[in-house]
Amino acid sequence: MSMESRVLRPIWLDDNGSTVNVIDQRVLPHESIVAELRTVDHVITAIKDMFVRGAPLIGVTGAYGLFLAALNAPEGKPENDYLIQESYRLKAARPTAVNLSWGVDRVLAAILQAPLPERVNTARRVAADIAEEEVENCRRIGEHGFPLIEAVSQKKNGAPVNILTHCNAGWLACVEYGTATAPMYVAFNRGINIHVWVDETRPLNQGARLTAWELGRHGIPHTIITDNAGGHLMQHDLVDLVIVGTDRTTSSGDVANKIGTYLKALAAKDNDIPFYVALPSSTIDWTIQDGLTDIPIEKRDPSEVRYVQGLCQGRVQSVLVTPADSPAANYAFDVTPARLVTGFITERGICTASHEGLVGLFPEKNQKPTNM
Amino acid sequence: MSMESRVLRPIWLDDNGSTVNVIDQRVLPHESIVAELRTVDHVITAIKDMFVRGAPLIGVTGAYGLFLAALNAPEGKPENDYLIQESYRLKAARPTAVNLSWGVDRVLAAILQAPLPERVNTARRVAADIAEEEVENCRRIGEHGFPLIEAVSQKKNGAPVNILTHCNAGWLACVEYGTATAPMYVAFNRGINIHVWVDETRPLNQGARLTAWELGRHGIPHTIITDNAGGHLMQHDLVDLVIVGTDRTTSSGDVANKIGTYLKALAAKDNDIPFYVALPSSTIDWTIQDGLTDIPIEKRDPSEVRYVQGLCQGRVQSVLVTPADSPAANYAFDVTPARLVTGFITERGICTASHEGLVGLFPEKNQKPTNM
Repeated sequence: MSMESRVLRPIWLDDNGSTVNVIDQRVLPHESIVAELRTVDHVITAIKDMFVRGAPLIGVTGAYGLFLAALNAPEGKPENDYLIQESYRLKAARPTAVNLSWGVDRVLAAILQAPLPERVNTARRVAADIAEEEVENCRRIGEHGFPLIEAVSQKKNGAPVNILTHCNAGWLACVEYGTATAPMYVAFNRGINIHVWVDETRPLNQGARLTAWELGRHGIPHTIITDNAGGHLMQHDLVDLVIVGTDRTTSSGDVANKIGTYLKALAAKDNDIPFYVALPSSTIDWTIQDGLTDIPIEKRDPSEVRYVQGLCQGRVQSVLVTPADSPAANYAFDVTPARLVTGFITERGICTASHEGLVGLFPEKNQKPTNM
Repeated sequence: MSMESRVLRPIWLDDNGSTVNVIDQRVLPHESIVAELRTVDHVITAIKDMFVRGAPLIGVTGAYGLFLAALNAPEGKPENDYLIQESYRLKAARPTAVNLSWGVDRVLAAILQAPLPERVNTARRVAADIAEEEVENCRRIGEHGFPLIEAVSQKKNGAPVNILTHCNAGWLACVEYGTATAPMYVAFNRGINIHVWVDETRPLNQGARLTAWELGRHGIPHTIITDNAGGHLMQHDLVDLVIVGTDRTTSSGDVANKIGTYLKALAAKDNDIPFYVALPSSTIDWTIQDGLTDIPIEKRDPSEVRYVQGLCQGRVQSVLVTPADSPAANYAFDVTPARLVTGFITERGICTASHEGLVGLFPEKNQKPTNM
């Protein structure tokens, strides 16, 4: 199916309300394929194999996964035990992003309180609510982040503001706008002269494939670089600002994000360049403090390192880069300590990467972390 | 031509003394091809297009390039003007590694002092001398670096010493032993339990393709990782030691090496992990001090970033990773400031990354840098 004619979002419920459609992001930008998810197993596969990825989108997909569980319950009865079991299966699909648990648990909590005959509709409504809230959160992140870019632009008298980003924290990772990209879209739409350095983001090249594609569709000037290049650019004054996303944020301000983020944060610090993390509050795990010890880091299939996928003779193919018998390791995320983060851009505004900063914006969460 | 049966070095003069053979490193480890260089233009192409790469090997290849110039001189007369002109052409092939100029100029100086009829033989002899000296330098680097690994091994009671390296500073980059790899080979050969984390080293994957292949042939346990992963490994105590090479070392101890080296040095510093640079003195540029301002950083073809080459259906092929219309930039090196380097491993021993350290080992060079 060609998606160009109908999709503005990476996930949507089809017209009959029983199939969850997602863009298969594994083959972007070379092929445009929509995958139809009709069962919990479909959803688990889509999350595990990264048809969908990005913390906010995984949360929304997981929420719709529990809706599909309710819809397809044995004998049409979505009983508690069954729903709880399916929720565990969904939440186990990927370990690092907290949004998956958050989205699944939110739907679960709502439907466990609903009578059996209303559970399917409740799940559908709550999943859709989550999607719309994440859209609104990303819109607000764009508004709150915009002044950061505007200020640099003024300081540079309108010369291009060079923003570096890692991985894809764009609308493909969310539902609309993106997190890290939201301030860029707002700035560009308001006429600010920006240029984005796009880390290719090995091993799965979400930067080179997805962020570059997003920015290119929107007409935003950008340049793809290897993950190795950012430090050199920062040393030579070619980066004004770094904005990245996060998959899980601790209550103390540590952030787990795509592997390699930590290296860029170190380089930004070493060169006095602001390093911001854009996040909807759904990525905050209020139960943990120490990102290095408390966030589970996913280890994925080494073949994602050994093979690289791309377009060859009109087809998406994979090439083996390494010797046939050399082993590889594939750590998917790393943790950037709060001390390296200039600030968080959230749906409620900007704060420092600290417990104080976060509870200043989210006072309703101001309670002792559970493991203190 | 299959090389397995005859090659122990990445460069050698054939039996009739008129053809310089090099391993075509562009297609390793998937194909074993030997390129025959018979003219200066062949040599320039081999250096520019990276049939050969690695600072010491480029120096040796450049030296043999001037031998070929002498051999193929118009009317059999290698006149001064002609040789000087050919030396300029050779030295312009790649800008960052100082060894190229060093090797070419050393042959040039020798043959300009020789009478015309002896120039070809002089050039052949000096080029061969340079190759042998680099072999001996690398052998000594291995001896001097070995105790660093041995000490960690003792401290860990024989548990594997985890060494991280970036790019290929192995025998393929030199002539034998390698620079960064030399201490690893010595340690392994003496029964020390080591394991090497091999940065894949985008864009041309010299780590994933060449270092992994070298180590694998020698039986050294190793694991290929993305360039993004090293920081995470260091945060989790999975790296004991970093050893890399250098393409140009300033008299003050800054080092230009493959792009991304700086990021690993930052991560090593942040995690108190020793970061050593192994170098023969041929990489030292005594005329400059400030690596960030004085070392020319090569910008290569963006297609090296946009396409990735590997094995597909039994053939070496390239796949396009990025959108067809997204631009890319390809900076080949970065500079690691001396303050991030624990020490240099040279053919004369280990020293600090500083002017004092270097002139302590090379007192004959103790003169004011020319730009002071």
